[in-house]
Order: sequence, then C-alpha cells, then structure tokens
Amino acid sequence: MNQNQLKQQVGQKAAELVEDQTIVGLGTGSTVRYLVEALGKRVAEEKLNITGVVTSNATADLAQKCGIKLKSVDEVEQIDMTIDGADEISADFQGIKGGGAALLFEKIVATNSKKNVWIVDQSKLKKQLGAFPLPVEVIPYGSQKIFERFQQAGYQPTFRLTADQQKKKTDSGNFIIDLHLQQIENPQALATKLIQQVGVVEHGLFLNLVNTVIVGTPTGPQVITAR
Amino acid sequence: MNQNQLKQQVGQKAAELVEDQTIVGLGTGSTVRYLVEALGKRVAEEKLNITGVVTSNATADLAQKCGIKLKSVDEVEQIDMTIDGADEISADFQGIKGGGAALLFEKIVATNSKKNVWIVDQSKLKKQLGAFPLPVEVIPYGSQKIFERFQQAGYQPTFRLTADQQKKKTDSGNFIIDLHLQQIENPQALATKLIQQVGVVEHGLFLNLVNTVIVGTPTGPQVITAR
Repeated sequence: MNQNQLKQQVGQKAAELVEDQTIVGLGTGSTVRYLVEALGKRVAEEKLNITGVVTSNATADLAQKCGIKLKSVDEVEQIDMTIDGADEISADFQGIKGGGAALLFEKIVATNSKKNVWIVDQSKLKKQLGAFPLPVEVIPYGSQKIFERFQQAGYQPTFRLTADQQKKKTDSGNFIIDLHLQQIENPQALATKLIQQVGVVEHGLFLNLVNTVIVGTPTGPQVITAR
Repeated sequence: MNQNQLKQQVGQKAAELVEDQTIVGLGTGSTVRYLVEALGKRVAEEKLNITGVVTSNATADLAQKCGIKLKSVDEVEQIDMTIDGADEISADFQGIKGGGAALLFEKIVATNSKKNVWIVDQSKLKKQLGAFPLPVEVIPYGSQKIFERFQQAGYQPTFRLTADQQKKKTDSGNFIIDLHLQQIENPQALATKLIQQVGVVEHGLFLNLVNTVIVGTPTGPQVITAR
C-alpha cells in the first residue's frame, strides 16, 4: 500500500465516525481531502445532515463541491468534532501541524471543538517531535528580525517559499518561518516561548488537544486513544 | 494650557532628544504628530541625518511629508530610540497602548529598539492601569468566540467600530476587541493569559519596555525616569 492509499483509508474511516445532526470541523491537507470526499458521499447517499466548519480556503472550496453545508466558526455555538491531519504525532499525542500553511485557522477551529481527531498515515507517528520542521506564522512587518532571533537561538529557521521563490503568504496574509529543530525536548516550554515573541501569530505545536488518532497501516486503519 | 498644547510641548521636547546619525522609531497618534513635525523641521534646518522606522501607515504618510527618510524595521540592524505616545502609564512605567489601533506595529518596533521613550500629557499618568480600555488585536476568523470567552471571564469586551459601525480593521487586517477592566491588578499575568489565547495576535499591555517618560504639564515638559 502506498502513502496515498493509507491516507484514503483513514479519511474514509474517519468519515464513518461523523454522526448525523452534528457540526464537524474540517481540517486541511491531502488526508483531509479523502475525508471530505467520503463525507460528501454520505451526505448525498444517506442524506446526512451535517454542517462543516472549515480551516482554509482550499478546504472550503472542496467541501462546497462535495455538497457539504458550511458555516464559519463564529456562526456555530460549538463544534462537536474536528477531524484534521497532522505532520507529526509524538507518543504522548502532541503534534506538529502547518505543513500546509493552514495552522492558524486549524488551531482556531480545534480550540473551539469538543473533540479533536487526527488522521494520519503511519509515517507520521514518532517517539518525539521535531524531525518535521515546526512552522511559525509571523506578521510580515518585523519578520526578518524574528528570523534573526530564531537564528541566534539555534532554531535553524527558513522562510517558507512559494514555487517561484517568494515568501509564502498564509490565508491571513502572514509569513511562515519553519524551524528545523530535529528534536523538541519540551514542547510546552517551546510553545510558551514562541507565542510570547512579539510578531508571532501562532505556531504549529498542537498540545493537549487530541486524544484519538486514526492511523493508516497496511493491515487497515487503527484507532488509537491516549492512555 | 489645553491638552493639545501639552501634547505639542512634549512632542517638541522629544524631538530635541534625537541625535544625529541615529535610527528613530516613530510611534502613532496625536502626540507623535507633533514629534514628527518637529523632527521634520530639524531635518530641514539642521540637516539632521536620521532614519525613521514607522509603526503605522498614518505615521509613514506624515513622516514622508515632513521630509524624514524612512526604512522598514526589517531593513535596519537596530533602532536606537523609539518615541511613542501611550494611553495610560502606571506609576511603575507599565503602559496601555492601542487607542489608535496601531499597537501591533508599535510593539514590534518597540521590541526592536535599544531605548523606548513615551510622550504624554499629564492626564495619562495613573497609579494603576485599567481605566483605559485594553485593546486586544485578534484574527477575524474566530473573533466572536474569543469575544464570548472574554465576556465569560468578566472582561466587558466591545469590538472597536468605525464611524459607520463596521468592525475596525487594523493595518494587518485584524479586529480590535477593547476590554473594559477598570483596574488591572497584575498586568504581567493578564498579558500571559491573553497572548496564549489562540487567535489573539497582540494586546495593548506594554510591559518592561520604557524607563523614560516625557510628561506635558502646565509648567513645562517633565522628563521622568524609572526608579
């Protein structure tokens, strides 16, 4: 089974978890695409009545094409469950997200959800976080100064670039600086340090948010829950 | 002496502090207007060679009109001194800023300055912070949810509105929520709580940044420094 098949497997499995008459946060990324397509199929075939809350312009476009009714996070009282991908998940269910540059809206939706579920192929499971570059969303004005401070701190920063070598802009018009840390000993301490930096809007450490992960494996999807 | 005369007095006094061949952060607001005009005069008359780093589109426009050479915060190595107004200053030199909705860029420039000076009329000096509404800059997506959490916390929030009753957008395209706290017992604890809220970009508590304040009084400008 290749990686795409594993992603499809967990996307479809997660779609089965969604209950009728609920409000569902929809993440962003290649695995979530399969989820949204499978959910759209259930809406059409089973007349499932769900409302999606999206985390990016890209997911909004796809969900609308798939016939899923959408609302803004500000129009709903609470989100029942958010399903999203992750770039890296540690053994204690902490995560790095933002490879798709949608970490800010993803985190806003996740923190407004009663329950959060991550869907990943097995390559995303790690003992410790940090091999995947940690994205930090920053205000463009002053971002070079933040970059220099990250350099001095030994964080090995790089600006996220577009295909034509421009600094990538997020859906909120900010830049992304990726930190190449290799390993993160204390995610909570790093999170606190990063968010207190003036000009940092959000970072890709998603801590204490998730206790259910669906993992795609060659023998089928495995649902694992935090101890 | 009316309030505008006091503002003019300190703006002109602060302009005298600026040394030749330096990089000067220029704040935002009605008091800073007088500073920028006085600095422009010194540039013209004394051939003062300074570079301004601005904190808002409004100050950029004015500084250019006044003949002050400008650079972005990202184009300079460090800012020698930033001069800005403040909406409220406590006895221990902590401040609230953001009445003019420019708090984000103001704080970015302030944190990249070797020295920060505030210029105010005497009405801004308080024993304790909090009578002035504390501005919080938030990402529009999810801002209603943050507003509700502020309500539940007893912060008495209001969205900053424009003259035609639309939610005001900052230079970064965000909203401002003003917190009507009356008094802030522990500014540092509140600052930490606010900045860790997902969707909060920055807040108007400017802590441990300033040790010189120039105050306009009917008997002339007084320069006071932190004990």
